[in-house]
Amino acid sequence: MTVIRAALLGFGTVGQGVYEAIKTHQKRLQERLGKKVEIAGVLIRDLRKQRSLPKHILVTDNIEDILAIDDLDIIFEAIVGNEPCYTYLNQAIEKGCHIITANKAMFAQFGTKLLEKAKQHRVQVGFEATTAGGVPIIRTIEQLLQVNKIEKVEAILNGTSNFILSEMRKNKLSFPDALQLAQERGYAEADPTNDIEGIDAFYKLMILSELIYGGQPEWRTVEKQGIRTLTSEKVQLAEQKQKRYKQIASLTKKDGKVLASVKPILVNKAHPLYHVEDVDNAIKLETSLIGTFTLQGPGAGKLPTASAMVEDFIYVLEKDKSIKQQGEVVYS
Amino acid sequence: MTVIRAALLGFGTVGQGVYEAIKTHQKRLQERLGKKVEIAGVLIRDLRKQRSLPKHILVTDNIEDILAIDDLDIIFEAIVGNEPCYTYLNQAIEKGCHIITANKAMFAQFGTKLLEKAKQHRVQVGFEATTAGGVPIIRTIEQLLQVNKIEKVEAILNGTSNFILSEMRKNKLSFPDALQLAQERGYAEADPTNDIEGIDAFYKLMILSELIYGGQPEWRTVEKQGIRTLTSEKVQLAEQKQKRYKQIASLTKKDGKVLASVKPILVNKAHPLYHVEDVDNAIKLETSLIGTFTLQGPGAGKLPTASAMVEDFIYVLEKDKSIKQQGEVVYS
Repeated sequence: MTVIRAALLGFGTVGQGVYEAIKTHQKRLQERLGKKVEIAGVLIRDLRKQRSLPKHILVTDNIEDILAIDDLDIIFEAIVGNEPCYTYLNQAIEKGCHIITANKAMFAQFGTKLLEKAKQHRVQVGFEATTAGGVPIIRTIEQLLQVNKIEKVEAILNGTSNFILSEMRKNKLSFPDALQLAQERGYAEADPTNDIEGIDAFYKLMILSELIYGGQPEWRTVEKQGIRTLTSEKVQLAEQKQKRYKQIASLTKKDGKVLASVKPILVNKAHPLYHVEDVDNAIKLETSLIGTFTLQGPGAGKLPTASAMVEDFIYVLEKDKSIKQQGEVVYS
Repeated sequence: MTVIRAALLGFGTVGQGVYEAIKTHQKRLQERLGKKVEIAGVLIRDLRKQRSLPKHILVTDNIEDILAIDDLDIIFEAIVGNEPCYTYLNQAIEKGCHIITANKAMFAQFGTKLLEKAKQHRVQVGFEATTAGGVPIIRTIEQLLQVNKIEKVEAILNGTSNFILSEMRKNKLSFPDALQLAQERGYAEADPTNDIEGIDAFYKLMILSELIYGGQPEWRTVEKQGIRTLTSEKVQLAEQKQKRYKQIASLTKKDGKVLASVKPILVNKAHPLYHVEDVDNAIKLETSLIGTFTLQGPGAGKLPTASAMVEDFIYVLEKDKSIKQQGEVVYS
């Protein structure tokens, strides 16, 4: 096989980003993988929408058409919501496709099951893009865990609420005005609940919990507090005391129990998350050997998320190659 | 083989850190590697010094004794200076040992040759610990480069000079007083030239240049300016204007030419390196897809550096396994 055949589920912002990143980085990918990468099909919801895709790409609103593509190797999933996404990915795994997902809500809930199923079918799952967009937090944690224990995580995992808090402080906006600005800039959805109530950050935190501690706390026991109740006055008062409200997702393990919360916390100047502005995400990790370590970068957006998915793509294919070769050696 | 046999070259701070990290993380390493890790020998300079090492470990001041150890798999190198270090590592590679190094000066100069030689002898070289201590900058860059281009690097790569600048600003110390404090705390050597003249940061920058752009600028063309000429007055004046001096190592490529410098630069509040305090290191990367991305953490110290070396150890062994298995498949 000299071609890797991929399909995209979803052709919104992220799906288009993946498509573009693969097109513009074709040469680099070929060098790395020794194979051409071909987008063979795209699953969309509304066939009537105009899309500037070349004729040889199958564009369909039926998952069966995608799964029927000959020699399909890998699926990039960039659709929203648990279903039908979870069903589609199950079908793809059963067909022997690797999957790369950016769907945090679905992966927080069904990630463990998908990973288990992928193992049975000897395919790989990439989920770097579910958490903190282009910031390579998943791979960094996997690497640190080889030697370090991770004692505690404190993170800004939702760019929209960080933007709102930044605007309330820097430009003295009220919460509704800052939210409206976030919506105008395209950072917040028409229904901003998931962002401002800490739900989006919660999903990402659960994915980190699974990765770091091998399990999640019971969802209903996790404190989730949004930023809606923070007034401009509170934010200004904190600023006068050289403190800032940050919407922080925390994770630690105590007496064998995973403790997690998402809520606004007052941090002082010495805290690594104090300086994180606008739509950036940042993750502070307290580790057993390295000590405290922070990553910061764009937590969302078309190209950062697409970049994470294409990095996953390479990682997944190389891991698969290595595993298959081990298999051949063992069984030869 | 159910044991991986390793030797340490050097038993100073970093060497002892590696020894301890392997001892305390034996179980984790065994799970990861499927093999026990045994430190079989330690090369030291002065045999008369008391060391609390178990009797079964060969302690010697002669490299030949180390290289004569049966089935030696890997060497951790934590000694200072280009020679005899470079010669030792060449010998180790010829013997078929993987090497893990923390020696930035040596690796900046001879890294490319060592990597070339290692390739010929089908062994691996780990050098994560040469740059920014426990901050996993080498692996992160390798990963980003799979998809992203790195347009520009700006980094604080020397914790000692950052500590001195922090103290001059925060506690209004003069340069000599801040340097003395750094020496008292064990951050600066008796001869602090390498730290305060930008030489240490320069070596690390050259390693990053090789990794990112596949080559280094001619060393004599790189501007290296130390922090010795910065007075407390200058630092205070900058602070009044809400700016800070940071000793910044910069790297970029323009018209096919790598441009590099190490010098104090005035940065404003919005710059990700503005807030980096004390002995921390930080690296800001401007990338083609992800955008601007920053890593921050302890750039030196016993356990962070040891952690980087032990992570390298796992990485190197897994890479080796994967390559050898590919070989077996191809040639079977």
